[in-house]
Amino acid sequence: MRKIQLIVEYDGTNYAGWQRQENSLAVQQVVEDALSKLTKEKIVIHGASRTDAGVHALGQSAHFKTESKIPADKFSYALNTILPPDVRIRESRQVPDDFHARFCSKGKRYRYLFHVHPHASAINRLTRAHIIYPLDVDRMQKEAQTLVGTHDFAAFAASGSVVKDTVRTIYRADLSRDGEEVKLIVEGNGFLYNMVRIIAGTLVGVGTGKLEPGAFARAIETGNRLDLGVTAPAHGLTLMEVFYDPKDLEL
Amino acid sequence: MRKIQLIVEYDGTNYAGWQRQENSLAVQQVVEDALSKLTKEKIVIHGASRTDAGVHALGQSAHFKTESKIPADKFSYALNTILPPDVRIRESRQVPDDFHARFCSKGKRYRYLFHVHPHASAINRLTRAHIIYPLDVDRMQKEAQTLVGTHDFAAFAASGSVVKDTVRTIYRADLSRDGEEVKLIVEGNGFLYNMVRIIAGTLVGVGTGKLEPGAFARAIETGNRLDLGVTAPAHGLTLMEVFYDPKDLEL
Repeated sequence: MRKIQLIVEYDGTNYAGWQRQENSLAVQQVVEDALSKLTKEKIVIHGASRTDAGVHALGQSAHFKTESKIPADKFSYALNTILPPDVRIRESRQVPDDFHARFCSKGKRYRYLFHVHPHASAINRLTRAHIIYPLDVDRMQKEAQTLVGTHDFAAFAASGSVVKDTVRTIYRADLSRDGEEVKLIVEGNGFLYNMVRIIAGTLVGVGTGKLEPGAFARAIETGNRLDLGVTAPAHGLTLMEVFYDPKDLEL
Repeated sequence: MRKIQLIVEYDGTNYAGWQRQENSLAVQQVVEDALSKLTKEKIVIHGASRTDAGVHALGQSAHFKTESKIPADKFSYALNTILPPDVRIRESRQVPDDFHARFCSKGKRYRYLFHVHPHASAINRLTRAHIIYPLDVDRMQKEAQTLVGTHDFAAFAASGSVVKDTVRTIYRADLSRDGEEVKLIVEGNGFLYNMVRIIAGTLVGVGTGKLEPGAFARAIETGNRLDLGVTAPAHGLTLMEVFYDPKDLEL
């Protein structure tokens, strides 16, 4: 038995998210089906992040066990001949038997993209959330800095979330503008359900002037979801990378 | 009667190019149909560039005549409520009666994007051409500079092209790398059929070492298409902007 890690890129537009679903197509299922076809084994994969419907990934991380003799680094090439073009394996490699894509994760980097223009974008409509009003990116950047550090982010989770420990550490939250595109990069040791989309939506509120600066600090203090802005749409979000301790990947 | 100019953005993936076709859907038809629906007139639009099937545009320019009383700058908003999401009007304005989107054009800017990685991209698969081998961007940039200036580009047209005057002026041809993306920007006073895609394909040849530097200079000298590389795929290409003399737009 070997354990193999996959780095998976996907355009989430046509999927019900990462996690296998009863009645709709998830990325996990597409990759599992391709792996089973390739190895003739029944394969279950474990992803680091359960991205929502419409959310994209450049660097989802997943692992599976196999008895197959295919060289570990060749899984990517073999799978990409089977997978649909909106799901690609960027990398495959053998990892230690006790590696787990989710439980060994030391953190993640997410990107959220906005298209700021009176009219929606045709070309980038599936990866950028459309914002009609101008954004004050300096004001957003200043607000975002109040996220950095270790805080109780209880207010930053979608209602219905059942996680008990809501303390997380944010390493970085940075905004930048490139023409009509405004980009948010957030890195942290972990994220609550919908947390990045709530951060993104709140930053839009601060950037358009609809919300007062200080919203993040207030919400951290009160734990009240209502101190924050709306949840930004799924399609602006991309899971960029899952971080591991290099030791955990060493064979 | 007024003449209105539209700046049109489109994701060319699902269209048979800009120009109206007998048996397949072109962007021109989609915009004309939306305009006719909006104005109740039979409207014909004239585009500056006949982009090919699969080619995108951020700044296609087109004009039409109308008796409609809709304020010129409101056409964009009204049309965007009718058009499919992969076609957007970025701007609409009244132009002089003797303006012509194609004949008044003083030049165009095109962008060609490559995704350089062992595996194709999922997220950017519809806007970047996949290149498996590393590209020497410095070598490509040096080669691209030999295009700049006024030359007879007879060798740079797809076979079957019937244009007589093949002299064009290239103002700029620049390459840059951003991670796995390599970008080519070309500006010129006009382009022959498939010219930018032939330039892009030749630059890939030079960048991978398959073609010797000096290919452009040789092809300009000989007029022989065979001195150049392959025609790069349509989906990497985007028409960015059509240039006009500001005087020609003044009411």
